[in-house]
Amino acid sequence: MTIRETIETTALIDNHAHPVEPLSETDVRERFAQWFTEGDLEYRDARHTFNYQAALGVLAERFDVDAGPGDDAFERELLESRATVDRHEYTRDCIASTNTEVILADDGFPDTSPAEFREYTDADVYPLLRLESLAESLIDDHAEFGAFEDALVDRMASALEGEYVALKTIVAYRRGLNVGTVDRADARAAFADVRSGWDGRLEHPRLLDYVIHRACEVAADYDAPIQFHAGFGDPDAHPRYVDPTHLVECIEAHPETSVVVLHGAYPYVGQAGYVTATYPNVYLDLSLAIPFAQHGSERVVSTAMELAPTTKLLYGSDGFSVPELYVLAARRFRDALASTLEGAVADGIVTESYAETVAENVLRENALGLYDL
Amino acid sequence: MTIRETIETTALIDNHAHPVEPLSETDVRERFAQWFTEGDLEYRDARHTFNYQAALGVLAERFDVDAGPGDDAFERELLESRATVDRHEYTRDCIASTNTEVILADDGFPDTSPAEFREYTDADVYPLLRLESLAESLIDDHAEFGAFEDALVDRMASALEGEYVALKTIVAYRRGLNVGTVDRADARAAFADVRSGWDGRLEHPRLLDYVIHRACEVAADYDAPIQFHAGFGDPDAHPRYVDPTHLVECIEAHPETSVVVLHGAYPYVGQAGYVTATYPNVYLDLSLAIPFAQHGSERVVSTAMELAPTTKLLYGSDGFSVPELYVLAARRFRDALASTLEGAVADGIVTESYAETVAENVLRENALGLYDL
Amino acid sequence: MTIRETIETTALIDNHAHPVEPLSETDVRERFAQWFTEGDLEYRDARHTFNYQAALGVLAERFDVDAGPGDDAFERELLESRATVDRHEYTRDCIASTNTEVILADDGFPDTSPAEFREYTDADVYPLLRLESLAESLIDDHAEFGAFEDALVDRMASALEGEYVALKTIVAYRRGLNVGTVDRADARAAFADVRSGWDGRLEHPRLLDYVIHRACEVAADYDAPIQFHAGFGDPDAHPRYVDPTHLVECIEAHPETSVVVLHGAYPYVGQAGYVTATYPNVYLDLSLAIPFAQHGSERVVSTAMELAPTTKLLYGSDGFSVPELYVLAARRFRDALASTLEGAVADGIVTESYAETVAENVLRENALGLYDL
Repeated sequence: MTIRETIETTALIDNHAHPVEPLSETDVRERFAQWFTEGDLEYRDARHTFNYQAALGVLAERFDVDAGPGDDAFERELLESRATVDRHEYTRDCIASTNTEVILADDGFPDTSPAEFREYTDADVYPLLRLESLAESLIDDHAEFGAFEDALVDRMASALEGEYVALKTIVAYRRGLNVGTVDRADARAAFADVRSGWDGRLEHPRLLDYVIHRACEVAADYDAPIQFHAGFGDPDAHPRYVDPTHLVECIEAHPETSVVVLHGAYPYVGQAGYVTATYPNVYLDLSLAIPFAQHGSERVVSTAMELAPTTKLLYGSDGFSVPELYVLAARRFRDALASTLEGAVADGIVTESYAETVAENVLRENALGLYDL
Repeated sequence: MTIRETIETTALIDNHAHPVEPLSETDVRERFAQWFTEGDLEYRDARHTFNYQAALGVLAERFDVDAGPGDDAFERELLESRATVDRHEYTRDCIASTNTEVILADDGFPDTSPAEFREYTDADVYPLLRLESLAESLIDDHAEFGAFEDALVDRMASALEGEYVALKTIVAYRRGLNVGTVDRADARAAFADVRSGWDGRLEHPRLLDYVIHRACEVAADYDAPIQFHAGFGDPDAHPRYVDPTHLVECIEAHPETSVVVLHGAYPYVGQAGYVTATYPNVYLDLSLAIPFAQHGSERVVSTAMELAPTTKLLYGSDGFSVPELYVLAARRFRDALASTLEGAVADGIVTESYAETVAENVLRENALGLYDL
Repeated sequence: MTIRETIETTALIDNHAHPVEPLSETDVRERFAQWFTEGDLEYRDARHTFNYQAALGVLAERFDVDAGPGDDAFERELLESRATVDRHEYTRDCIASTNTEVILADDGFPDTSPAEFREYTDADVYPLLRLESLAESLIDDHAEFGAFEDALVDRMASALEGEYVALKTIVAYRRGLNVGTVDRADARAAFADVRSGWDGRLEHPRLLDYVIHRACEVAADYDAPIQFHAGFGDPDAHPRYVDPTHLVECIEAHPETSVVVLHGAYPYVGQAGYVTATYPNVYLDLSLAIPFAQHGSERVVSTAMELAPTTKLLYGSDGFSVPELYVLAARRFRDALASTLEGAVADGIVTESYAETVAENVLRENALGLYDL
């Protein structure tokens, strides 16, 4: 079997994704492109990313429509077919086509839960605990910091004792990755501030930092990883403070905690590879960057592999809401991995058999081990 | 017609350039390489960039000289021929060879004006208003801040009511892109400081910031874009503060203003694509980076297209002073765009007809719409 | 002769490396992979970088072992053969196979000195003076700042009057490249602090900064370069402050000093090229990044050549401790340079004869001139 064949046939462990959610027919007909951008774009521009165009290609395959002139009528025809699919069957088919065995799914976005998601995919779904959603629900319910903190730790612990396989945080999009040290008294004061003007959204840097540090401790106690969104992925983020070099103080503060840097930290992929190659407790997921970067997927994979040990790289789709993202991620990731490894073999850098080991590790074995699946 | 043929034959709208200026024969014979670097280099090093070597290649074509051994004598022969050209005829021929229909030309650099430039190019030339030159001339003439500010706004408004199609700023090279908020009292105090020691060059961060914010407001009022130099482009710049992620506070403060990030913000191209993909009011020009990066032009175009909507990318040459830069930019940009699109089609990411749409948009349609030409 | 043949046969000047040191048989059998990472990794991960896998390939060639299944037994067999080599003969053969004529070797790491290194390589070895090691030894010996400073300057001067060809600093890994200005009184106070709690390791930012500025002055006096570690290269470094854009204030403060930015400042290669293309006194070495980036070596070389004059680029291996790093660096660098230049010729950017000039300059002539060898 060639490397490419191995890659094409290995069942995937998708270490970072979100449930597919119901879309109305109007959503599909009028707003479908918005699920293929992470920006806050005008719709006329959102339609013109390579990622959305590739999604139209997936629809053309699914509905057996000839691309023809590739004009607006072509797009409308595809969206019309897409609008009226049976969501469960369509999702099941799309994800089955990716040969994904396990999906680790965020429980905080979108509104559809991982449990509901299980009803329409044959992949095994394990939940990830989103810390900001948890903290926000606990701020609703607790007037005192001590009670909040106890409940936070209890809920993280019981999740990891139960079916949850990891924690995850979007602190990058709330206050940046430069998570600072904060003592309990400051956190208590921050909590009081937050409660007094509580609007349902936790953005206070000191309180977030405290939550993250406590989460890192709990993760270490349960030998479970914590995933950090990094790089692009939300228009709320400040594009500079999602660079993973901002996270190193936190990484160094928790050497016993396995930290997963998400999204290849795109566009800071080189920095992410460097951080992964430097700290023993850091792992690197390449979701979202792939498929969003589309033709750049090989550049992303190749760059990550320049320094990072291949035992620390993870496949992920960051599929959310629409199953086409799962399809695009699997396709582009497999293709990029195959091209990178074929090139390394051709250049005499690694042996063919080692390239096969890399492929199996990155596509599944690394995640099976890290998340103890 | 193949994608490459479409790209080779589409007339360009060059959204960012400068007039060609008269060079003395001595300038050409002894200092020609300095127009192909943006650094403050020793001449022995300036001669050894790929950009200058490619310029010699353009001269060899123009003067029909065989490259032969490519040694110093070859260079001297080429420069001798170049030194004695008829500047008007030579410029006209060079730019005609690029099939450029429209050039948007900075009125502040070099000393030759856009109006003079029109006399020796068949392309339509529209002027861009350079804010720093304008502000400096107004500081010369106005002792009071209020009068300065009124004159500044009046001049911007009358320019945009007239033939000017956009504003442009080199604030990146004066104090960096981290343009801060500044209230009018602070700006007034800054103006007084500047006036008291006025030396003709505006570098005061607070006054510059105020000028930029007022310019963004005027640009929005007239539905005209404002161009920001970003990335490399001037030895005055601090190489860190030309990263466009420093500009996001300003971008967010003016959601109604169309902001054009220039130069692909090289080497921060990934960050520039990310910013363009995130904020609806940001557009990305790839001038200067192309042609300066020469063999890296495909990397620049390809990276920009990873996230940025193709409706927000703009062709530009940043040609200045010597017409060879126009020739090199058009050549390398077309080649890089063709290679990127051919690759995306071959990989099944976009259809061939969509690739043609992208080509037409990037080379001309996006600029025609944005600048309302 | 083709460009590739020229590149394959040109004798190298390695402008940045370290002596090969004795390894015990146990070191080789149990810890060999650790010499192929700069991270603080678990051994199970350190084994899984492309750089280490390529090193196994070098061993397979040397010991004529068929890669076969490329499994753990293959690795053990190779390491067993490697453990028992005659170090002198093996090192001599490895380095001879790279056709390296001159090696500039750090005198501060590892414990083996450049003089000892000469005994088992046919290349000419010239020492580089590591400033931090020197300063630390002088802090041991001097209680007063004035005496320390005098001794520091004397030792730098006598080194450069003698066989030393350059200074080098690892300040990037002690306090970052953002070397600030510091007056003598502050440096004196810092020295007193350092002495009072002296533990043998100099990390005090103000004292380090003062040492660096004095070193830049001495380097200029002797027309000798100073090398700055930049980019990845030590787990002590903060991954953000090794970006060479942090060094520009220091570069600008010493325009008469030739500054060599090491390691291509990986992953900040684009920034390093930009800095090199902007400041006349900056040179760029690509060691460590090559070979560590392995399949990414062409990306590194190609990116560096986008802006940087080819007369300012330097070959280096950063080989240290094990001779295989010298072999890998020479192989990957030559291959990457050949591919980059072949591509530029094929695209009509430079002539074939100019590409040959570039190859000779980068592989040897630039270093011969810069270090006055």
